Amino acid sequence: MKDKAKKIIDKMYLNDPFTKWLGIERVEESAGKSVLRMTVKNEMLNGFGIAHGGITYSLADSALAFASNGYGKMCVSVETSISHMVAVKENDVLTAIAEEISIKNKFGIYYVKIVNQHNETVALFKGTVYRKEKDWEI
Amino acid sequence: MKDKAKKIIDKMYLNDPFTKWLGIERVEESAGKSVLRMTVKNEMLNGFGIAHGGITYSLADSALAFASNGYGKMCVSVETSISHMVAVKENDVLTAIAEEISIKNKFGIYYVKIVNQHNETVALFKGTVYRKEKDWEI
Amino acid sequence: MKDKAKKIIDKMYLNDPFTKWLGIERVEESAGKSVLRMTVKNEMLNGFGIAHGGITYSLADSALAFASNGYGKMCVSVETSISHMVAVKENDVLTAIAEEISIKNKFGIYYVKIVNQHNETVALFKGTVYRKEKDWEI
Amino acid sequence: MKDKAKKIIDKMYLNDPFTKWLGIERVEESAGKSVLRMTVKNEMLNGFGIAHGGITYSLADSALAFASNGYGKMCVSVETSISHMVAVKENDVLTAIAEEISIKNKFGIYYVKIVNQHNETVALFKGTVYRKEKDWEI
Repeated sequence: MKDKAKKIIDKMYLNDPFTKWLGIERVEESAGKSVLRMTVKNEMLNGFGIAHGGITYSLADSALAFASNGYGKMCVSVETSISHMVAVKENDVLTAIAEEISIKNKFGIYYVKIVNQHNETVALFKGTVYRKEKDWEI
Repeated sequence: MKDKAKKIIDKMYLNDPFTKWLGIERVEESAGKSVLRMTVKNEMLNGFGIAHGGITYSLADSALAFASNGYGKMCVSVETSISHMVAVKENDVLTAIAEEISIKNKFGIYYVKIVNQHNETVALFKGTVYRKEKDWEI
Repeated sequence: MKDKAKKIIDKMYLNDPFTKWLGIERVEESAGKSVLRMTVKNEMLNGFGIAHGGITYSLADSALAFASNGYGKMCVSVETSISHMVAVKENDVLTAIAEEISIKNKFGIYYVKIVNQHNETVALFKGTVYRKEKDWEI
Repeated sequence: MKDKAKKIIDKMYLNDPFTKWLGIERVEESAGKSVLRMTVKNEMLNGFGIAHGGITYSLADSALAFASNGYGKMCVSVETSISHMVAVKENDVLTAIAEEISIKNKFGIYYVKIVNQHNETVALFKGTVYRKEKDWEI
């Protein structure tokens, strides 16, 4: 399973300009799980001098995509939610851990936790994906 | 009220590097309302050749911040959710319309609708903000 | 369309013991819309002497089911969220207004607003439904 | 801490008519955690012959209230969401496990998992609570 997941995520990752702009690196991955890491740059800050909420959302959403598609079926997100708990600053190193909580029928539910370099939870994300009939061709 | 809202949003907008990177322009604003617009660039795409979910989230989250802070009290987001309904492509022009649905005690609830240049709804966002005791100094 | 929606909702409503226990009455309905009403009874209160959050959720969830199934395709809820803004008391008369915001591919998104007899918004609910291939037989 | 949590939950539970109607029993509890159990009765079913979505929501919402108030500060829910994954039938025995994921500043976030007697996850609930300045008097 592991190799198939890796190949699929390679395919998604290698052609993903926004993930590249974010500077996301892959730390760990398998079907149903993805760990991603990135460092917060100056252009990711908002008017309060802290990371824009869209940055942590984007990291979590990428982790959701990688974790859910790793099984081989194409998955699209149906609904996602995020709570931002701790302010994220320039040069913070963020790690997103996406884990599958449930797969049932056509839907998968994932929790993603984002921690900073002090291992504080800065954001919690929940994502529901729809598993299409279509498989990834790799 | 209008002028105060405008001054507060100026303050947030003028020092917001990520909003600048996104190329967000302000179309309309008042206390409780914000309309923003942006054009999707190549570096905002994901591995499927469509805009990363983080792009529409970021636009909606900025609209939430501008609409809710316009009253004069500092607001922070507590929980946000988004559903992506229609794929967004390069060069699409996205408009986010954030409107206050309820303000009660310390909390405000906003709905943000994002439409493309064909007036199709591409994403729906709901945000809950906490209104701090602290006022904006302008 | 209207008559078909009415027949489908009849079928759901007439065999729904919990909706009966809640004392829900149908005020208005068509494909994509449902307005329901109920009066809060003593056994619906929680330990604070106000209506349990499950009461307003149940009313909103019924309105979601009636509004979304009225088109003829069987719909099941995928994800729902609710914010409780104003305390609901015994004998309050609650009205839920469910409206379709978007139908796209296999998914529908609905907003449900619950108001009390003073027309105050007491809760806001968002529901995403999955539209099955299967049609209602009526 | 345990005894204080127990006393607070006693106070909430003993005067909660709806929790009584649901037949909820307390299995385990401490500050930040609550496990509740109930059996699905005929009057909790909807028009499809399965438990109304409001039943699992109500059980989860009670678990959230018990877990979050156990610390001694009065907590109110700000936003809750639930996904229903497996149909719940008459006589099913449901167990809700509420656990605190994060407490930061004035907000707490809890995940609640509901399983049936076969240990299948039937619903996943996420709740955000606001922690008031006010303490419980016990």
